[in-house]
Amino acid sequence: MSISYNRIALIGLGLIAGSMAHALRRAGFEGEITGYARSAETREIAREINLVDRVCESASEAAQDADLVVLCVPVGVMGAVAKEIAPVLKPGATVSDVGSVKQAVIDSVAPHIPEGVHFVPTHPMAGTEHSGPRAGFAELFDNRWCLIVPAPGSDPQAIDKIDELWRALGSTTEVMEIAHHDLLCAIVSHVPHLIAYTMVGVADDFSRVSEQEVIKFSAAGFRDFTRIAASDPTMWRDVFLENKEATLEILGRFTEELFALQRAIRTGDGEQLFDYFTHTRAIRRGIIEAGQDTDAPDFGRGKS
Amino acid sequence: MSISYNRIALIGLGLIAGSMAHALRRAGFEGEITGYARSAETREIAREINLVDRVCESASEAAQDADLVVLCVPVGVMGAVAKEIAPVLKPGATVSDVGSVKQAVIDSVAPHIPEGVHFVPTHPMAGTEHSGPRAGFAELFDNRWCLIVPAPGSDPQAIDKIDELWRALGSTTEVMEIAHHDLLCAIVSHVPHLIAYTMVGVADDFSRVSEQEVIKFSAAGFRDFTRIAASDPTMWRDVFLENKEATLEILGRFTEELFALQRAIRTGDGEQLFDYFTHTRAIRRGIIEAGQDTDAPDFGRGKS
Repeated sequence: MSISYNRIALIGLGLIAGSMAHALRRAGFEGEITGYARSAETREIAREINLVDRVCESASEAAQDADLVVLCVPVGVMGAVAKEIAPVLKPGATVSDVGSVKQAVIDSVAPHIPEGVHFVPTHPMAGTEHSGPRAGFAELFDNRWCLIVPAPGSDPQAIDKIDELWRALGSTTEVMEIAHHDLLCAIVSHVPHLIAYTMVGVADDFSRVSEQEVIKFSAAGFRDFTRIAASDPTMWRDVFLENKEATLEILGRFTEELFALQRAIRTGDGEQLFDYFTHTRAIRRGIIEAGQDTDAPDFGRGKS
Repeated sequence: MSISYNRIALIGLGLIAGSMAHALRRAGFEGEITGYARSAETREIAREINLVDRVCESASEAAQDADLVVLCVPVGVMGAVAKEIAPVLKPGATVSDVGSVKQAVIDSVAPHIPEGVHFVPTHPMAGTEHSGPRAGFAELFDNRWCLIVPAPGSDPQAIDKIDELWRALGSTTEVMEIAHHDLLCAIVSHVPHLIAYTMVGVADDFSRVSEQEVIKFSAAGFRDFTRIAASDPTMWRDVFLENKEATLEILGRFTEELFALQRAIRTGDGEQLFDYFTHTRAIRRGIIEAGQDTDAPDFGRGKS
């Protein structure tokens, strides 16, 4: 797994870009890493901690002469950034992004990509509840999926190169079709996040039970929701706005199922509840067997 | 913290009773622990692994001469078990239970408690996704809450004794009023579990995305739901049926909030989404500051 770029520009210096910089160095990348963030404070911190080799004062400055430009900004501003850097992109360079939504990013970014420049969207499925330039760490992508989601007409060789990059950063990669990516992510990530956000909001807003109490007794199941619901608000706002169709479709199915279970509770239909819960338990076994989680008996306990 | 019972009977030999037996021994309890489970297979396993000192062939046999009888059965059958053992309960003995719902348990158990026998309901807020006689371990209750929820007229001295027992088993205890307990648990535990069950069911039932794919990419948020949704089906069926009122109330608030967020997504109201997500993030900080979870940056990763 070799990294076949000489200069890599990271636009946006948050958790993902920062982790990419750390992982690039861990992988022995010897080229230059440039970086830019819209916030002066973020750029200042990035310089202070030597996050990249050169922190630039504009996205164009960072993208100039880069072989690979990775857009690590919220999905909603990808298009504007692409438009801004387009004039400086060098022929044969590759533009990529790390957004959690792909159709919307392709729609907004692709029109700005100049002739002779490649565009290969990706989605590293990794994150923490932390954000900002100090949040990154080299191990973030280790053994995590990075989905490569080619735009229409993406160059096969450019796809291979970015695939190799992500494997060098620690990821397992898979090429996926755009619409399927957005639907799959709505199911395994976007709607679960929205539901977690909602439940945490409900708990906080309930006047007969204090926030202190909710926090105190959170280990009983609620804590897993707060962990999910602590992710970056800007990123998630954009995800829901930009993956609207799939999110609303899955939400529709979710409320349909929830109402069916609610009705079973109201009417006292224990058999329906039991059958449903037995079935979902089997899915959990599948996840453990697939090596995506461990079987250790400490649910709700020492998670770090 | 001393244990002031000489003989303790555990009715039901699943995760909680098993963990109590292990924790009693760890605490140096020198009296006899008797046990009973309805399933012959469970009794057989319990004997094989020496889970308790004496596995009995009936609940009454186990409860005979016990100073403390703890009902560790699903909430829906607590009343029937209490009725069965009532004739053998000795004067001055205490009956307790470990159910996740308290009003319904008190309604079904209290009428069977003989004059001169104490009844002090409790709720150890600890569990794993595993169940059965082999699932227990001595550390399950360490630093976890055990709520003591006295029935009307519970004897103050009997309350103190059971409070001491739970602290000896590793728990932190708090006395709580019945209705408040049931509402709090609906918020921090019951509704989160129902939502997790629902989301896992939706994911499994979605024909355009395979179960294998959902499992493969589960680390993106979904996995936390499957962990919650893998708990014992019988226990949870009973929890929802027996804490119907509070569950339906919180569910109503949840769907109201969810619809508001869904509408914001549909209408493209990014400000509403951003404000909501910013607020929930603050709640997460509160949980970390309260020492109920760690701040380690590995969300969705190496949880064991």
